[in-house]
Amino acid sequence: MGNMIIGQSGGPTAVINSSLAGAIKAAKINGVERIYGMRYGIEGLLQDKVFDLGVYFSNLYDLSLLKRTPAAFLGSCRYKLPSAKDDEDTYKKIFALLEKYDIDKFLYVGGNDSMDTIQQLYDYAAEHSIKVRFMGIPKTIDNDLPYTDHTPGYGSAAKFIATSMKEMIQDNESFGAGDPRIAVVEIMGRNAGWLTGATALSKDADCGGPDLIYLPELPFDEDDFIERVERILLTKKSIVVAVSEGLRLADGTLVCNYGMDASHTDAFGHQQLSGAGRMLSNALGYRLGCKSRAIEFSLLQRCATHMASRTDVDEAYNVGYIAVSKILEGESGKMVTIEVDSREPYVAHYELHDVHGIANVEKKVPLDWITPDGTYVTEQFVNYVKPLVIGMIEPHFAAGLPKHLKIPK
Amino acid sequence: MGNMIIGQSGGPTAVINSSLAGAIKAAKINGVERIYGMRYGIEGLLQDKVFDLGVYFSNLYDLSLLKRTPAAFLGSCRYKLPSAKDDEDTYKKIFALLEKYDIDKFLYVGGNDSMDTIQQLYDYAAEHSIKVRFMGIPKTIDNDLPYTDHTPGYGSAAKFIATSMKEMIQDNESFGAGDPRIAVVEIMGRNAGWLTGATALSKDADCGGPDLIYLPELPFDEDDFIERVERILLTKKSIVVAVSEGLRLADGTLVCNYGMDASHTDAFGHQQLSGAGRMLSNALGYRLGCKSRAIEFSLLQRCATHMASRTDVDEAYNVGYIAVSKILEGESGKMVTIEVDSREPYVAHYELHDVHGIANVEKKVPLDWITPDGTYVTEQFVNYVKPLVIGMIEPHFAAGLPKHLKIPK
Repeated sequence: MGNMIIGQSGGPTAVINSSLAGAIKAAKINGVERIYGMRYGIEGLLQDKVFDLGVYFSNLYDLSLLKRTPAAFLGSCRYKLPSAKDDEDTYKKIFALLEKYDIDKFLYVGGNDSMDTIQQLYDYAAEHSIKVRFMGIPKTIDNDLPYTDHTPGYGSAAKFIATSMKEMIQDNESFGAGDPRIAVVEIMGRNAGWLTGATALSKDADCGGPDLIYLPELPFDEDDFIERVERILLTKKSIVVAVSEGLRLADGTLVCNYGMDASHTDAFGHQQLSGAGRMLSNALGYRLGCKSRAIEFSLLQRCATHMASRTDVDEAYNVGYIAVSKILEGESGKMVTIEVDSREPYVAHYELHDVHGIANVEKKVPLDWITPDGTYVTEQFVNYVKPLVIGMIEPHFAAGLPKHLKIPK
Repeated sequence: MGNMIIGQSGGPTAVINSSLAGAIKAAKINGVERIYGMRYGIEGLLQDKVFDLGVYFSNLYDLSLLKRTPAAFLGSCRYKLPSAKDDEDTYKKIFALLEKYDIDKFLYVGGNDSMDTIQQLYDYAAEHSIKVRFMGIPKTIDNDLPYTDHTPGYGSAAKFIATSMKEMIQDNESFGAGDPRIAVVEIMGRNAGWLTGATALSKDADCGGPDLIYLPELPFDEDDFIERVERILLTKKSIVVAVSEGLRLADGTLVCNYGMDASHTDAFGHQQLSGAGRMLSNALGYRLGCKSRAIEFSLLQRCATHMASRTDVDEAYNVGYIAVSKILEGESGKMVTIEVDSREPYVAHYELHDVHGIANVEKKVPLDWITPDGTYVTEQFVNYVKPLVIGMIEPHFAAGLPKHLKIPK
């Protein structure tokens, strides 16, 4: 039996390392001799940045800590593998490196682009009768991978976003005797509104939730938006709106770009950039003459491991574990998927899906999960995401702060 | 014995409700007949928005939940009480309302402005021989109240900021094989750098901490800043800088205003506003031609109760409890302070300080707690804040999200 290599790719999530922990555990239990890690994904592999993971996980405490470590422990990359037709040298280089380390099992944790990498490497190996197996481990906070009920990373991001929303709505409501206060919260997700929709979870027994939710699946109408806020202001002094960073006007213009003027520069001589939330918050301030604040959760959405969902952490671990188990059984060219048998009570199991065709499909929020007026998500959406945020995984603390695991320099 | 009233004022903190819980507990134990709450602070009191708090706290579970509830449970205000000389009517109105509810104990949880309110009401009562006692309960994430070692609210904000910093630095370091990545993180604190300095806590066994920390106590030099980042880029691909929202250039201009041009409007017809972090991130991008991202923790700094410090929650509870105990013993015109006997091991006790003179002093970071080059805080600073972030107080969860207590509409 040859060795195994694993890499992490794309934007990190709160649980991408949990998948790594599951994969390492399965490899150790099944007696894989050497478990290599790609430092910075396939971009690092191409620079021969490969290291022996066994060194870092000699005890179970380290694996437990790895599950609680944010960002990509191995390092990540945003590297688009060229097609073998355009650049066969890159393929020759990769397979030469795999041969050098006697690797016949290749696992990659990532989203759409990473599955594309797996697919291309698998196809090349098949064509050239190279005996290396490939397996994809799904990961993305955006939840836009097809053929899986949801993607590890999404539940934790949703939990952090919904928790922060609850806290911020409570904060925004504090000043009820004075002027109205509006907050426009911008949420990640360029083309799919899964994360923005998850803000609806904050609508519960003790919180009214956001007043309006705008997903990128539908065109955004600024005038209608302003009118709606104006109407809500008649009865409420605190308004919180959730908007996707990827909102577009009917003509396709990104809201975040709308109004950007390349000729304008500040005193530093720089063009000022803006986000959708900031644009819309400014619009409310100017058109309604009221106090409005733009808020971005920014990177915290994908790295707030301190608020990870136990369900998500466990599932991420499981898809990593199963990927290795299955590759050892001889499977190749597949991605592990999560199938949900029941949402309440929550019961799920895992399957494999052919990696072909996964890369090019971006799973968006079904339009009938958005209210007809386009300003909220439906109960179906909420029932979908609800089980994914359940459970806490308490950090290991040192001096009051969560401890993380790190590759020594 | 007359009744008691308590109000919350100014920007909320993660633990302002813990002080309220302590005050309610002390009042109940000591047999205060009625505990009134001001809805939206003194601004609400002036509108006769007063309600009986006893109704909401008939069991201990509610007090436990109150400690875990972000923002001002009673509602808050930013209301500057005019002087009695300028506007005696307001005073007459307030004291008439206190008489109406048979109130002789008045407690106010807040920062500098709130202590000014306490002071003026106390002085007016003394001059007019009105038998109402007044007590201030300190609260502010900014930590800028004098005569107390630190202020409740600061420790929890510091813990959230340092935790998020650790997570984001780990995230920012993920892409080590590609282009350099810079993040400029803007932290709250207009004139005092206590929160920005707390980012240094993230420098620990498994995190390098921010590369540069800029406090508002010292003038900011943009050229020197750019040069320093350029130098760090020679050896590192991930740079994270922490800056205070209140940074000023040597001539006193706020960095966040620098470069703002009132004549420029976007396509919506609105002037674009910016923050210090965004300005400096843009400056790096344009002057060094590298990828730079601005990040604001925004409201989360003061409302992320899910990451509150147990030390802070306990101390906030205690100052509330002691304020009521002392007012019942006959004290008036004071603010409760925290005195630290030992930082390691951490031992603290509580005192009272005359409220006069507190309002007008803004406690800043001592200049010798900032490194001579003005780009970091010293070990003394870190030792000061370290004990304040210790301990977790786990939220009560429902459906995966923290539960909060709320005044029914």
